[in-house]
Order: sequence, then C-alpha cells, then structure tokens
Amino acid sequence: MEILFTFIPKEDQQQRLETEFPQVHFHFIYKDKTRLASADIIVTYGEDLTAEDVAAAEKVQWIMVASAGIEKLPHQAIAERGITVSNVKGIHKIPMAESALAHLLSLKRSLPTIYENQRNQEWSRRIRSSELNGSTALILGPGAIGSEIGRMLQAFGVYTIGCNRSGKKAPHMDDTISFENILEKLPQADYVLSILPSTDETKQLLKEVHFKAMKKTAIFMNFGRGDLVSDEILLDALRNEEIACAVLDVFEQEPLPQDHPYWTMGNVVVSPHVSSHSGKYVERALDIFIPDLKKWLVDQTVPTNLVNMEKGY
Amino acid sequence: MEILFTFIPKEDQQQRLETEFPQVHFHFIYKDKTRLASADIIVTYGEDLTAEDVAAAEKVQWIMVASAGIEKLPHQAIAERGITVSNVKGIHKIPMAESALAHLLSLKRSLPTIYENQRNQEWSRRIRSSELNGSTALILGPGAIGSEIGRMLQAFGVYTIGCNRSGKKAPHMDDTISFENILEKLPQADYVLSILPSTDETKQLLKEVHFKAMKKTAIFMNFGRGDLVSDEILLDALRNEEIACAVLDVFEQEPLPQDHPYWTMGNVVVSPHVSSHSGKYVERALDIFIPDLKKWLVDQTVPTNLVNMEKGY
Repeated sequence: MEILFTFIPKEDQQQRLETEFPQVHFHFIYKDKTRLASADIIVTYGEDLTAEDVAAAEKVQWIMVASAGIEKLPHQAIAERGITVSNVKGIHKIPMAESALAHLLSLKRSLPTIYENQRNQEWSRRIRSSELNGSTALILGPGAIGSEIGRMLQAFGVYTIGCNRSGKKAPHMDDTISFENILEKLPQADYVLSILPSTDETKQLLKEVHFKAMKKTAIFMNFGRGDLVSDEILLDALRNEEIACAVLDVFEQEPLPQDHPYWTMGNVVVSPHVSSHSGKYVERALDIFIPDLKKWLVDQTVPTNLVNMEKGY
Repeated sequence: MEILFTFIPKEDQQQRLETEFPQVHFHFIYKDKTRLASADIIVTYGEDLTAEDVAAAEKVQWIMVASAGIEKLPHQAIAERGITVSNVKGIHKIPMAESALAHLLSLKRSLPTIYENQRNQEWSRRIRSSELNGSTALILGPGAIGSEIGRMLQAFGVYTIGCNRSGKKAPHMDDTISFENILEKLPQADYVLSILPSTDETKQLLKEVHFKAMKKTAIFMNFGRGDLVSDEILLDALRNEEIACAVLDVFEQEPLPQDHPYWTMGNVVVSPHVSSHSGKYVERALDIFIPDLKKWLVDQTVPTNLVNMEKGY
C-alpha cells in the first residue's frame, strides 16, 4: 500500500502517520510526479492534478483532497475511473467563520477608522459604531461553514436566514429559503454572505436585480467562490451605492489584478483568499484522514465527506 | 416633580418621556446649571457634576447616571446627603462585548495586515492567521460586561477564567478566581482582558510581575479604566516583548497625549475610549430609567443598578 502526499506535512505529522500505519509506504513529495504510478491513495490540496496525472496514477482508488474546493480536479477523468474522492470540508468551518465574524465586527465597531486615526495620531471620539445585535443576515450556502457562521451570528443576537437549493431547514438558521426565493428576503438582510461552492447553479447566481433589492446599508460578503457574481455587476452596485460595502475573499480572477478597481475603493475590503487560513489546518485534515484510512484498510469503507464528482460538491 | 437631564436626548426620546410622565416637568439642558436648585432627579452622563453643583441641587434625591463610570461624581458630597445614585451598567454590555470580540478576532484573523496589504495593492497570501477556538481568556471583572464577553468567547470555543474580588462564580466563566490568585492563572491565558472599574482595589492592580507572568504571545486588553496599570509598566512589558500586544480603549491620561509612544507602537492598538459607542445608547438608558421612574413616583422604590458611593461601584 502506497500513499502519496503532494504536499509536505510537518515532521511530527509525518511521524504520526507512519506510527499509526507501519504497513503503509508514505511518500511526501511536492511538485514531483514520479510516484503517481504506484500510489494507491493520493492526498492533495486539489490544485495540482491534471487528467494526465490521473491517467498516470493507474492504481489510485481514492483521492483525498485536503481542502474544500474540488473544482480544479479533472472531474471527468476521475469520474470515468470511478475513483473515490473525499474532501475535508468540515475543517474550514472554524477559521472561516471566525474570519467572517472578524470582518463583520470590525466594520460594525469601526476598526478601520480606529486604525486609521491611530496612524494619524488623532484622538477622535466621533466614531459612529453600530452593533450586530438585532440585525439580520442572509447566508447563501448554510452548509458546514455557513451553519457555523450562523451559530456565531446567533450568539450575537443576529437573525439568520439560510438560502440553499432545496430550502430545507439548515442548522443555526432561524429561517431557510430556496435560491428561487432570494429576492423576497434580500430587502430584510443587513448582511448578505455567501460561502457557496462553484457549481453550475451558483455561477453568476447574483444579478443586478439582487443588488438593487438589497438595503443601501447592506454589507455583501463573498467567502465562497468569485464566480458567484460578475465584477461588472458588483462594481456597479458599489459605485451606485446600492449597498454600503463588500468584503471579498474570493474573486473572478485570482490573484486580483494589480490595476483592479477593488483595491482602492473605500467601500471594498480585499482579502486575498485567506479566510480559511489556520495553523491547525493539516492537523485537522489528519484527524479526518487517519480514522478514514483505518477503515479503508479493513474493507475499503467509504471515507467521510465523500464528494460526488458529477454534482461538484 | 422636576427632572433635569444634563444632556439632550433625541426629539422622539424626549416625547417618549413626556408622554409616559405627563405629571413631570422635564428639563433637557446641556452645560447650563440654572435648573439645579429645583431638580428632584438629575439624569447625567456623570462627568459634569461638582460638589458645588450637588450643594446647589438642594432638593435632589436621585442621581441617575446614564453611563457606567461614576468615578467623576463628587462621591463625598453625594454620600453625605444620602442621595440615591443609580447607573446603567447593563446597557454597555452589548457594544463593549462586540468591540472586545471585534479587536480580538481582528488580530487573530490578521485584519490589520489584510487592510495594510490592500492599501499597498499587494496580493499576499502569506498571512499567518490563528484562531480563537481552543484558547484561554482571563477576564478581570466578570460583571455585566465581562460576563457578556465571556458568553461570546465561549461561543467561539474559548475557555474563560473570571477574576473578581471574592472569587465567587460568575456567569459564562468556566472558572473563577479571586484577585489574590491572578498570578497563578496568568501563565495559562492567551488573552488578559480587563473591564474593571476604577476603585481603591483596582488602581495599579497590575504590576511588573503580572506582565512577566503572562505568555509572550498574550494579548492584553484594557477596556475598563486607565489606572489599572501604569504606562511605565505596560510600556516596559511591550518594549521587552513580555507580551505580544495590547489593545487599549482607556488610558492613564485621556485624551492620550499626542506625543505618547503608544500611538506609533506596532504592538499597540489605540482605541479612543469608544468601545461602548452605540446608536442604541440613550434608547437603552431610557428602557431602564422609565420603569424605574414609574416605581419611584409611587413610593420611591430603589432603582435598578443602585450604586454604592462608598464602594465606588
């Protein structure tokens, strides 16, 4: 049994794996594909495998993606071979939810102004802070991450409305609606927050009409994928002050081009796709992978967080 | 019955009072003390009454302080007359707790760096964010505000240790200790957060030895009163990197002098005593004052949040 990691875990994490599974040959190799042919399992961040790589990995039966985004995987090549794919979607929920709350609270409690006044050495108490308490959030994609954001928002006294495909009740949502009913609820939302993955249904989901339906004081936050809304539509909404501001962790084009207007707009926060960053990342991925691997080695039990390559999540 | 407000509530708030109490004469007068002599009740932010004013207010029986801090009141003059004093300590808890969490999350999720990189139009994903989850907070003063901070921290998976005079269990604290045992617990704390009022016991409570006992990675936050620790001691701790950083909303001298070193230190956040700011402030003060006044008018029932002028809180 050979397992290929296409990234290099820390020394103690490598040891943890080797101690748990003495019978397995682990290879931890970054940007070197010479071990593909003999790998039974591949553990990857999901951005480095091409269709050719999948063809070369002729023995592989399970690809574990140590990340939530699987859109860069060669879906067809994997689906044709019937390779099992799993991801670690659960492990993003804490850092991402903390990032979402950090950005939201920072804006409500005037931190950008406080920081700026400090740079200017200016003691100014004319700061109009407001509160999360008593406001309403519309959460597009109340899955693992969205529900964790909902849980935290509820702790701050925020009314949470989840929005998903089915409209089926989601955890930590006071209300849940389906995509078809977004327009009805947008006028109530103080924050519109997306953690939607990129799928055929979510691409360009938000149009002009949606931003026109939002409150002029609304904060739009995109922590899902950049293709949820076109730059053109969002720039118009921000320039015409149809909404108050946007906090963007994802973009149509990443890295965001140097001359992009978002960089210098006073009502845009540019976060360079870092909201899931955490020192605990690989540790948590192994906490999922190790028990899954134990079961797999017994009878190829299907791993946690199985991904349906046809649906794309 | 005459009631003197030494600040001016909004029009609709004045109307709310006048409608609720048609039998009362309300005076809303800022910086003009001509109405003191006839006032039965004074409602003040607590910073504008001298011992002479109290002597002039010869009829006054109740001073309602629409703020938490009462240290600027002429304590002796009030105590001698046996005037009832109440404050609105409960109404600060939401905005202050939101501010505390905003600052903490901002630092953990690297918002100052994200904002700075945006100013430099620099897409840099080399950002080392960490998490609140799994950390430990020591909260000096787990009263109304401190417990609300504890509640929010617990929602983020933070272990909370309250620290008060008695060591008596406080809400939303996983553990509570008394002031005498601070030193034992300081080495465990990732954040040391004070919302203590200024009293004889809390003035200069934190000494060199306390900062030396903290983690080098600790974040110290003072949202209580500036006399908790001297500038000299705190500056030393920050310059010698005995702690990672300080977020200060209160200072020994306010406004913070223009040439004070805090302004330009990379490991200090200067917040100009604004953490309790909220658009809902006076509204909430009236929510406390109106029911209290109703009862007072019947039989001088003691108001909510009675302040003991001898103890100072």
